[in-house]
Amino acid sequence: MHQPTDALASPRFTGVRTFARLPHVPEIAGADVAIHGMPWDGGTSFRSGSRFGPEAIRSMSALLRPYNPAVGVMVFGNLSVVDAGDAPTVPGYIEHTLPRIEEFVSGIIDRGAIPLGMGGDHSVALAELRAVAKRHGPVAYVQLDAHHDLWDAYNGLPYNHGTFAKRAIEEGLIDPAKSLQAGQRGSLYGPDDYEVAADLGIRLVPWQELRHWTPAQFGEAVEKRAGDAPLFLSFDIDFVDPGVAPGTGTPEVGGPSADQALDFVRALKGRNLIGGDVVEVAPQYDGPGQQTALMAANVLYEMLSLIALRRA
Amino acid sequence: MHQPTDALASPRFTGVRTFARLPHVPEIAGADVAIHGMPWDGGTSFRSGSRFGPEAIRSMSALLRPYNPAVGVMVFGNLSVVDAGDAPTVPGYIEHTLPRIEEFVSGIIDRGAIPLGMGGDHSVALAELRAVAKRHGPVAYVQLDAHHDLWDAYNGLPYNHGTFAKRAIEEGLIDPAKSLQAGQRGSLYGPDDYEVAADLGIRLVPWQELRHWTPAQFGEAVEKRAGDAPLFLSFDIDFVDPGVAPGTGTPEVGGPSADQALDFVRALKGRNLIGGDVVEVAPQYDGPGQQTALMAANVLYEMLSLIALRRA
Amino acid sequence: MHQPTDALASPRFTGVRTFARLPHVPEIAGADVAIHGMPWDGGTSFRSGSRFGPEAIRSMSALLRPYNPAVGVMVFGNLSVVDAGDAPTVPGYIEHTLPRIEEFVSGIIDRGAIPLGMGGDHSVALAELRAVAKRHGPVAYVQLDAHHDLWDAYNGLPYNHGTFAKRAIEEGLIDPAKSLQAGQRGSLYGPDDYEVAADLGIRLVPWQELRHWTPAQFGEAVEKRAGDAPLFLSFDIDFVDPGVAPGTGTPEVGGPSADQALDFVRALKGRNLIGGDVVEVAPQYDGPGQQTALMAANVLYEMLSLIALRRA
Amino acid sequence: MHQPTDALASPRFTGVRTFARLPHVPEIAGADVAIHGMPWDGGTSFRSGSRFGPEAIRSMSALLRPYNPAVGVMVFGNLSVVDAGDAPTVPGYIEHTLPRIEEFVSGIIDRGAIPLGMGGDHSVALAELRAVAKRHGPVAYVQLDAHHDLWDAYNGLPYNHGTFAKRAIEEGLIDPAKSLQAGQRGSLYGPDDYEVAADLGIRLVPWQELRHWTPAQFGEAVEKRAGDAPLFLSFDIDFVDPGVAPGTGTPEVGGPSADQALDFVRALKGRNLIGGDVVEVAPQYDGPGQQTALMAANVLYEMLSLIALRRA
Amino acid sequence: MHQPTDALASPRFTGVRTFARLPHVPEIAGADVAIHGMPWDGGTSFRSGSRFGPEAIRSMSALLRPYNPAVGVMVFGNLSVVDAGDAPTVPGYIEHTLPRIEEFVSGIIDRGAIPLGMGGDHSVALAELRAVAKRHGPVAYVQLDAHHDLWDAYNGLPYNHGTFAKRAIEEGLIDPAKSLQAGQRGSLYGPDDYEVAADLGIRLVPWQELRHWTPAQFGEAVEKRAGDAPLFLSFDIDFVDPGVAPGTGTPEVGGPSADQALDFVRALKGRNLIGGDVVEVAPQYDGPGQQTALMAANVLYEMLSLIALRRA
Amino acid sequence: MHQPTDALASPRFTGVRTFARLPHVPEIAGADVAIHGMPWDGGTSFRSGSRFGPEAIRSMSALLRPYNPAVGVMVFGNLSVVDAGDAPTVPGYIEHTLPRIEEFVSGIIDRGAIPLGMGGDHSVALAELRAVAKRHGPVAYVQLDAHHDLWDAYNGLPYNHGTFAKRAIEEGLIDPAKSLQAGQRGSLYGPDDYEVAADLGIRLVPWQELRHWTPAQFGEAVEKRAGDAPLFLSFDIDFVDPGVAPGTGTPEVGGPSADQALDFVRALKGRNLIGGDVVEVAPQYDGPGQQTALMAANVLYEMLSLIALRRA
Repeated sequence: MHQPTDALASPRFTGVRTFARLPHVPEIAGADVAIHGMPWDGGTSFRSGSRFGPEAIRSMSALLRPYNPAVGVMVFGNLSVVDAGDAPTVPGYIEHTLPRIEEFVSGIIDRGAIPLGMGGDHSVALAELRAVAKRHGPVAYVQLDAHHDLWDAYNGLPYNHGTFAKRAIEEGLIDPAKSLQAGQRGSLYGPDDYEVAADLGIRLVPWQELRHWTPAQFGEAVEKRAGDAPLFLSFDIDFVDPGVAPGTGTPEVGGPSADQALDFVRALKGRNLIGGDVVEVAPQYDGPGQQTALMAANVLYEMLSLIALRRA
Repeated sequence: MHQPTDALASPRFTGVRTFARLPHVPEIAGADVAIHGMPWDGGTSFRSGSRFGPEAIRSMSALLRPYNPAVGVMVFGNLSVVDAGDAPTVPGYIEHTLPRIEEFVSGIIDRGAIPLGMGGDHSVALAELRAVAKRHGPVAYVQLDAHHDLWDAYNGLPYNHGTFAKRAIEEGLIDPAKSLQAGQRGSLYGPDDYEVAADLGIRLVPWQELRHWTPAQFGEAVEKRAGDAPLFLSFDIDFVDPGVAPGTGTPEVGGPSADQALDFVRALKGRNLIGGDVVEVAPQYDGPGQQTALMAANVLYEMLSLIALRRA
Repeated sequence: MHQPTDALASPRFTGVRTFARLPHVPEIAGADVAIHGMPWDGGTSFRSGSRFGPEAIRSMSALLRPYNPAVGVMVFGNLSVVDAGDAPTVPGYIEHTLPRIEEFVSGIIDRGAIPLGMGGDHSVALAELRAVAKRHGPVAYVQLDAHHDLWDAYNGLPYNHGTFAKRAIEEGLIDPAKSLQAGQRGSLYGPDDYEVAADLGIRLVPWQELRHWTPAQFGEAVEKRAGDAPLFLSFDIDFVDPGVAPGTGTPEVGGPSADQALDFVRALKGRNLIGGDVVEVAPQYDGPGQQTALMAANVLYEMLSLIALRRA
Repeated sequence: MHQPTDALASPRFTGVRTFARLPHVPEIAGADVAIHGMPWDGGTSFRSGSRFGPEAIRSMSALLRPYNPAVGVMVFGNLSVVDAGDAPTVPGYIEHTLPRIEEFVSGIIDRGAIPLGMGGDHSVALAELRAVAKRHGPVAYVQLDAHHDLWDAYNGLPYNHGTFAKRAIEEGLIDPAKSLQAGQRGSLYGPDDYEVAADLGIRLVPWQELRHWTPAQFGEAVEKRAGDAPLFLSFDIDFVDPGVAPGTGTPEVGGPSADQALDFVRALKGRNLIGGDVVEVAPQYDGPGQQTALMAANVLYEMLSLIALRRA
Repeated sequence: MHQPTDALASPRFTGVRTFARLPHVPEIAGADVAIHGMPWDGGTSFRSGSRFGPEAIRSMSALLRPYNPAVGVMVFGNLSVVDAGDAPTVPGYIEHTLPRIEEFVSGIIDRGAIPLGMGGDHSVALAELRAVAKRHGPVAYVQLDAHHDLWDAYNGLPYNHGTFAKRAIEEGLIDPAKSLQAGQRGSLYGPDDYEVAADLGIRLVPWQELRHWTPAQFGEAVEKRAGDAPLFLSFDIDFVDPGVAPGTGTPEVGGPSADQALDFVRALKGRNLIGGDVVEVAPQYDGPGQQTALMAANVLYEMLSLIALRRA
Repeated sequence: MHQPTDALASPRFTGVRTFARLPHVPEIAGADVAIHGMPWDGGTSFRSGSRFGPEAIRSMSALLRPYNPAVGVMVFGNLSVVDAGDAPTVPGYIEHTLPRIEEFVSGIIDRGAIPLGMGGDHSVALAELRAVAKRHGPVAYVQLDAHHDLWDAYNGLPYNHGTFAKRAIEEGLIDPAKSLQAGQRGSLYGPDDYEVAADLGIRLVPWQELRHWTPAQFGEAVEKRAGDAPLFLSFDIDFVDPGVAPGTGTPEVGGPSADQALDFVRALKGRNLIGGDVVEVAPQYDGPGQQTALMAANVLYEMLSLIALRRA
């Protein structure tokens, strides 16, 4: 079973950086979960740089240990996990990049592993969703994010990190009736911006509402919509307060603390997670302490915990 | 009507940086509100650098969009807003600088616009208050700040960012009976430091007290004092927890989160805002993600929202 | 009586940097408290750099003033405090370094002053505890920290920042029955990791539990265990949320805000503090605003306040 | 005549940032030269971020004054210069972006001004060259750059910052017989990499050769090829040693010092400069002192000086 | 005799930071040389921050050892040197600050020590020159600097870092016939800017000329003018190429390398140095490696060497 | 044959970071050269942090391509090279760490590959030299370094980065008569500091002398001493001017430019290189552009070129 290098025997700052010091296994054979990078930032509307997000998350994930006391599960003892490396991308050409990421993620799924991705800007989720929908049909979809990414177009062109979720609904990758977005905040283009979610059939819980919910309430809202359907969880790091996670491209002030943000992920306990990602980590804008990349590594760790808990 | 450049047509990282991508209109003609910079840091007692505050706030304000969902108002659709550029300053000479800022702000008021300023260290507020008092008489004054700035002198000299509020009361620019300061915290020179506020007739709500208030309670406390009097709101960015807003000259640990801080501003809904500012942004001490400048841009956006709501 | 330089007469950015601008008095004569540095990072398991922690804390402590309004005590008016300089260390040789720090701290105690230390990685606390136990016998011990530091060995070797607390219990420096650790969080090596505390007789309150306590509850829990016994308080800066205090070697996401963290220290009011430290400040990983060092300076200031309050 | 704001009357850190504090004149009327930004980094093969290059160059160009003593010309007294703002771009879509930049630059040329561009990654030069060739036919072309950018394709796709120069030759925008590239260094894909230049008819002077030339020799080599033909000068900031100019996407160690680099530009005195640019400034990777952006601003200033000298 | 702490016995990162780990002796008794800080940046025309210059130089000067092999002299073995602390300053009030610095420096001179100052912006040199001229009469003056600082006024006001040298000549503090400025470069306000030097009687050697001189030629030029007259050497850190020393307020591209810059100082061997300074270190703009502060510390070390050599 | 991933097919920012994107092959089978990391900074006398040097060098080495035009050799086409990962280390225990590194390097040599190491502080070279001497006997040794590292002890203890070279001679790992150190500069403990080299029989060429040599002269000096003996080349990154390579622990101002430094390595063409390293890269002190790590990657690339040239 694929396990991380033991930190008590070999210091955590040693070794070629893979996620959580897991073995780098491009062929993925026999893994329950494959962590993979999607180094692409061509769909970014403000600050680029998330093409180095996977490198940064790998670097800080060296701090992860096998057992998660917050939810009481042995993550790496129960799951065989690998770092599958990075999907190929083509700088400057979003329409050539998305199919390559899709194919890469499909390769993971075809080998029987659950894909957990490290972005890369959020447009990569369209590729991931194409891959998971190819296997599972329209999936339940939960998006924790300061933005809904349901805009129609920028400059009249269809693909970028602010439009991908609308595309995913249009392409039938997501079942909106089973899906939910939460955490949206910040200024908008107009008073109807949030209504587009209702029009498309997906539930939207803005941060102004979510901040008054308990994690349990959030978990129930997701359970009510998604039930046991195959569920893809997309976590945009800008969901978190930029005071905590400044290293991202389109920060919106306010938002959950680190504890709150992790609690919302933990609230999905019991759901049928068949894929997920953490996106929009732009290490150029992170502090020298790389707190944003560390946060992202921990979010992925909580996703691994959800999978381990369900399998346990 | 003066409006920002449309971000769906032209990416937000393009163009000469003005506040919120608004037109740069030094003559101000026909504007409801004029955003302006006050690049001065000569009154700083610890870390200088806020002379570059206006540049940093302008840079991050590119992320602002027209509609504010938190309070439900179309900011730029209802108001004509311009970036009036920067007031002149004279490095090294505070007594020559304050009159120049005062004259600049008076020019805005004379043209019928509400001035919203970007600091610069807090001593600039004395110049702004001189300008607004010239028009409105002694104003109601609300200061959200980790410090009360009511000290008498540093080194025996009268003007700097720790003494300006006392000067403003002494000069009759502020009506202390209608005014309130909130958020003060951190170590002091002696046990009587906060009593000077009472002695001067202004209410002071230290952070140790304010942190237990709801925003509504704060709004009521301001309403009770200020009623519908012309009100100037001065927001020192060091009001916010330095974990969230580190880019400032005299940080005090603790303080509100970004959400809390914005809520306190929003609580002034209904008041008669005739001027305001955000001061003490020192971008040299901000993180690479410029989260402090972004916070400041959003505070100004909430002030614009207060004005738009009252006019709606 | 040793007092800081007056900031109203001489700007706080002037002068050779000592803690809170106190006199640098290596001989310590006549001081109630001696602040001292322990520039050592050889016991660090991930990011080194805390050897420059004392310099950074001294730099930001220039912002401290004499009176603490949060607890209502004149700190520097009631106490004679000095900066005793730094303990000697030997890079690369932990077994030669610890005795030198111990001797240095013993020198402070022998001159009748309470030692408050600035780390340095947490392994220095073993040296401090050896010094205080030599005078006071096994002490009550409170550790606010994201880690319990009760692991047995790294690479089969006994001394580093993750094992020192176990060594301290084994050496009889701490009375576990009077002691308590709080704030532990983050991933672990296995499900039994926290049980080692119970096995060793020390109480452990993980962050998942502590976050639901009031400061008063924490104060009572400490009082119940420690009573009036001589108490050493060790504050690892990684106890605080890395969003607030990123400048540290082994950050764990989540944790208390600055206000919460200070409240937990203030809750020890009335206890018999005979020593303390703040450790693990690594300024290389702090933001440009040095918010972590400022936080550490304030934690030491709250410890001084506890001593001043008890003596008042 | 369009002139910068006077720095002796108004401090250089004041005002909305335009190049050299020149007026922002989008319509360009009556200008001899129009400085403009091309905020695009979608053609970048390694580190993105140059979409913020124009903002950074504008910021540091505030230090420029009217007279250039190195070449003895009054730059702003002899030339009417404006900041024309930024060309539109479409993140993620290089094939939609290049025509928009081309149209923008054509607009400048059509109004009778010489375009001097601020990149943006080097792929923008293809758009500029299309615009200048539309007016002037195939131009003489000088490229100071650590790379020749004559590769055929990346990932089988034609447009990016490493292939644009080959495209420009293929499209007949450049007359290779009149053109020269200099400064190339660093590792290559194979021993034939530099021969492609000869195959395409353009002269290539690698840094290993150029470093032994005087500026005068370089000037003569350019004169010999270009004579008085319309000449476009493209200056990739990675031409300069990354010790001096680290803020760029694909740095190559070694290269000219700042003095040397400026001398090579000055050596073009007398040539018929009809356009130029400075590209690949990525401020996220610059030092806090923004030395790379300052270098870029000075290179543009030397280009302005070349134009002023020729007109004088 | 005052000597630094021995680095072979106590690591250089330990101890309260003083220049070169020398004793902090405010009373200066018995010292040959007194290093002192002048934390003032109110005379800065662009980037403020040099009030923290003395702290940064002290921090990096920990790397200095007693013997200077480049010139073959035991610096600390031959000279008794102390760190005299910082001169008092009054933020915002240049006309109150200069007399305080003057008095502080006079105190050093009156106690028989040579003052070597750490700036602070260059306006502090006016205060230093007033102090030395009070003792020595008009002095020979050498200024290594990218600017001549002979402008008449900014905003019509007399004192700042760009005008102080003119003031010093006008006040008769400097004997221009014995003085020389070198290294000036960068853009100017007009073609006559350098002629003001000749008009005032001081020799000016611009960088375009100096860069072709050997250090020996420079030494001879100074010797020719100054002979054995009391000489004050003022070294503006912006004399050095900003690639090497980016941490300063008004950088000008180009300029000497570190080796060249030190050679120009060493060339003053034999001169009668009675005072000196290094100014304009702004650590906020330095790289994380603090290379500018290290350079400044070494320039002061070379000045100490000049004094030691002359006394040897 | 082990080769890097092709950058024309897969962008250089993708993939798990290994040196030059080479395969990570811990078993080393069939490689001509094995690049390996030595993440250890416990022997550092000033700024720690070089334990993250290998990670930083790997990150920036992604920019390397197969062909080296400066010396005309296909590096990766001629050599089979792997990234062997990192040697084990034990933080805090230098005497336990050195044997583990030695064993790791011996493993590489035993498998027939040439070890090229990435530091780590310079004390790791003692371990490397023990490994190479075990195979080759006392080797010829060339050290490019700002320091000679021939001091006897710090704090009376034998092993650290300033003493290792003396230890290596004492242990008979180096044949001093065949060896040479060059580049030493900066202040020293006393006038005899450099004479210790002569006393130990090794030639020392200080930077004050070396800066006047051509690379060819340096090559001849090495050839004269080492001839065709097995030669180990140790390159301390602080050899390079800190303006170019600031990211290191004990910088000394002055020193070679990047071009000069590479030329000195290239001058060893023809020598019998049987091992080498680049040490003292501390990325915490590097600029955001990571120019120091890039320089280090290129130095290793030149060492690979020397090996490829000799085998060609």
